[in-house]
Amino acid sequence: MAKEITSRVNDYSQWYNDLVIKGGLADYSSVRGCMVIKPYGYAIWEKMQAALDKMFKDTGHVNAYFPLFIPKSFLSKEAAHVEGFAKECAVVTHYRLKNDPNGSGVMVDPDAKLEEELIVRPTSETIIWNSYKNWIQSYRDLPLLINQWANVVRWEMRTRLFLRTAEFLWQEGHTAHSTSKEAVEEAERMLGVYTDFAEQWMALPVIQGRKTANERFAGAEDTYCIEALMQDGQALQAGTSHFLGQNFAKAFEVQFLNKEGKQELVWATSWGVSTRLIGALIMAHSDDDGLVLPPKLAPLQVVIVPISKGEEDMKKIFEKCEPLLKELKSKDISVKFDDDNTKRPGFKFAEYELKGVPVRLAMGMRDYENGTIEVARRDTKEKSSQPFEGIGTYIENLLYEIQENIYNRAKLFRTTNTHQVNTWDEFKEVIENKGGFVSAHWDGTSETEEKIKELTKATIRCIPLNNATEDGKCIFSGKPSKERVIFARAY
Amino acid sequence: MAKEITSRVNDYSQWYNDLVIKGGLADYSSVRGCMVIKPYGYAIWEKMQAALDKMFKDTGHVNAYFPLFIPKSFLSKEAAHVEGFAKECAVVTHYRLKNDPNGSGVMVDPDAKLEEELIVRPTSETIIWNSYKNWIQSYRDLPLLINQWANVVRWEMRTRLFLRTAEFLWQEGHTAHSTSKEAVEEAERMLGVYTDFAEQWMALPVIQGRKTANERFAGAEDTYCIEALMQDGQALQAGTSHFLGQNFAKAFEVQFLNKEGKQELVWATSWGVSTRLIGALIMAHSDDDGLVLPPKLAPLQVVIVPISKGEEDMKKIFEKCEPLLKELKSKDISVKFDDDNTKRPGFKFAEYELKGVPVRLAMGMRDYENGTIEVARRDTKEKSSQPFEGIGTYIENLLYEIQENIYNRAKLFRTTNTHQVNTWDEFKEVIENKGGFVSAHWDGTSETEEKIKELTKATIRCIPLNNATEDGKCIFSGKPSKERVIFARAY
Repeated sequence: MAKEITSRVNDYSQWYNDLVIKGGLADYSSVRGCMVIKPYGYAIWEKMQAALDKMFKDTGHVNAYFPLFIPKSFLSKEAAHVEGFAKECAVVTHYRLKNDPNGSGVMVDPDAKLEEELIVRPTSETIIWNSYKNWIQSYRDLPLLINQWANVVRWEMRTRLFLRTAEFLWQEGHTAHSTSKEAVEEAERMLGVYTDFAEQWMALPVIQGRKTANERFAGAEDTYCIEALMQDGQALQAGTSHFLGQNFAKAFEVQFLNKEGKQELVWATSWGVSTRLIGALIMAHSDDDGLVLPPKLAPLQVVIVPISKGEEDMKKIFEKCEPLLKELKSKDISVKFDDDNTKRPGFKFAEYELKGVPVRLAMGMRDYENGTIEVARRDTKEKSSQPFEGIGTYIENLLYEIQENIYNRAKLFRTTNTHQVNTWDEFKEVIENKGGFVSAHWDGTSETEEKIKELTKATIRCIPLNNATEDGKCIFSGKPSKERVIFARAY
Repeated sequence: MAKEITSRVNDYSQWYNDLVIKGGLADYSSVRGCMVIKPYGYAIWEKMQAALDKMFKDTGHVNAYFPLFIPKSFLSKEAAHVEGFAKECAVVTHYRLKNDPNGSGVMVDPDAKLEEELIVRPTSETIIWNSYKNWIQSYRDLPLLINQWANVVRWEMRTRLFLRTAEFLWQEGHTAHSTSKEAVEEAERMLGVYTDFAEQWMALPVIQGRKTANERFAGAEDTYCIEALMQDGQALQAGTSHFLGQNFAKAFEVQFLNKEGKQELVWATSWGVSTRLIGALIMAHSDDDGLVLPPKLAPLQVVIVPISKGEEDMKKIFEKCEPLLKELKSKDISVKFDDDNTKRPGFKFAEYELKGVPVRLAMGMRDYENGTIEVARRDTKEKSSQPFEGIGTYIENLLYEIQENIYNRAKLFRTTNTHQVNTWDEFKEVIENKGGFVSAHWDGTSETEEKIKELTKATIRCIPLNNATEDGKCIFSGKPSKERVIFARAY
């Protein structure tokens, strides 16, 4: 084997770290809590970005860029925002260094203190709405449908690569509307975009829902979310979309002249997904041999490993495969012919399994003479010998099949690991021993929600959209309830 | 007119600001020195990014992402880097806010002081080479060809939108090589990529050259650059590519085992272009009516303005134009049919001129009946009536023609404004009254270079690559010189 991977059963958390580090996705940096996204990990992010960006543009959004820094006073303007938002932020207090008179290095110049401290953006509602104030005068300026691709910083104390880092990359949409209805529709539309992206690109089935008041974004009237289930039975929030009401318009005095000539406050949404999705992608599909990437997001979709004893054979195999390389490229399938003769085929096989390349082809001289090629699927690890003739179309179809299979497998896993429970004992038992999504009645109060969290570490992941109404009793308080909600322990 | 633009003759600097602000490219923000890049300006940046990113990948580079923050001590590690680099940096000293006991706002938590201050990256050589140390062991790990798209911060005191802002967006390539020769070739290759991008995409003719020792990047052995000429006769550095020797490898102890089994220090390059290019684009081509954008970078390449008296006519014109819209889109030409009936055609014409849309089409009922359409070029402001039949192909060719014409015009301007001078009096006269590039002999010393700068504000922009040797005398000192260099006042 190329690199030793801890098995999921032995240590799930170490398995995850092994995949990230040994798979070449990311690395720790010398700055506490900040990671380096390595080329292979960044290539996945680029594929995610391209797909999402197209979906945003197809729904009428444009990109823009707002400052990295937020004046400290801005954070105080929206009361719920400042109260609810984590205060762990990077604070810029000085703007100059100077040579240290006592040494060879540099020191912070005490004379270069900022009058008002600047916060490195943890999210950009405040700085953006401060700009929108100047951009919006009339109903004709609305809706404003803007997205930003950016880095943000939240000074997390306990970090994990991709899942929780001090700095991360994300996109944040910030839209402005003339009516509440339109803003709610926008928040729901973007939840739909995230759902399509998760399911169709990441092969990740998600539950769409609303957060409880407790779990809402600070400053939001309503937070929509998509929740996914990881292989260890923990939930992961994969994206959120907020209906912000008129809260930020009030805080930053953003009004518009409506069609009747009256001043009104503007309605807002914001929505975002981040590099955290790479963590979700890894934990949802991968196995003890390495990454399993859905073909649509795999940086390399097909690899061809020639198995030859000498240069002459290698040349023959390459010449045979050259038209296939061209054919696949013309179908927009990324493919590599690995002719590195410093590594053995077995080493390469393990390496490409670790990297999660969806289809691996191998051709030796016997294949060459028989007109066949060996095809190995990463998802099922099945190998088969296929006729070389027509292999391009075969691979194209196989990639679709793998994408679908990974999705179906994750969906089956979720179904198997979603439990309806009706009593408190049952609830505790399932949360503790089985994990997964737990569908249960809840009395709708924050007190009960917090108590359950305290006792079991399970939180309400969401109140599913289009939830069936059903008379029941809260598993904890026994009070009446009209619908079930989804509980889980979560990342 | 939609919006009043100051003329170039009256106030060049105000003309530039008018174009940026009124053209909707960028806006000032509440954070000193930081700008907001508005959707139209960002759309230009996205087109630049897409073209450059493809060129980087076609030359074997991959993208990655490194932390925003750099530990203060890293900046001291490479002596020339810290000495030469501007010390105006944003410094993070704290990691938490708290509720202000004396008010309703937040304050910096004095208990959350960082042990070592963090610098918001002004450039990433140090943090990247600190990672490369762990990634490079053997000659097999080389070359490492990595690029990063990122935001950087340099606390500039005098800022101008796009040209000089505290925060800006850029790309920075950082490569590692096993030989000096290979690193120099890489630095030159990337200068070639920048040249192709400037000339073929931005329609901006540039001079390729080397910086003098004085003007070199801090920590570089050699800095290559491309220099462009703006319409006010000032030069603008449009991109740089540095051969860094083994300086950063030494500072961060990055060695590799060569083929002979010996440890050697790694050789480095770095190269970058930034959102400053948008400033160059504006100043090189635009006129008193607004932006003139080269078709290859224009967010909107073609606009159709229907001129109709009523809904019925509008519908007829739209139906006539619909196949054209489809045809242009199928040719990857961005096009908009502007059916907004709240604005008069004259207003729209002025607006699209301001925005620099390369081709504007107008169709009234007379055109509709005659089978013609009015075509207006933004670059020359020529209007003509053209047969509607075959107009798609006509426009496609016209866009190429406009791209070429803008380039040729800029090149002619540069030729006209490049002056060979041989005496100090002539030099002063030209710099003061004519501006432009001044080609003159220089004795090769930093003292002379600095003296000339002090007296005339002109700097040596570059020593052109493939420069002709020519015996001459330094215009300032009269000492012998073997080649001419390019002087100019610069942005």
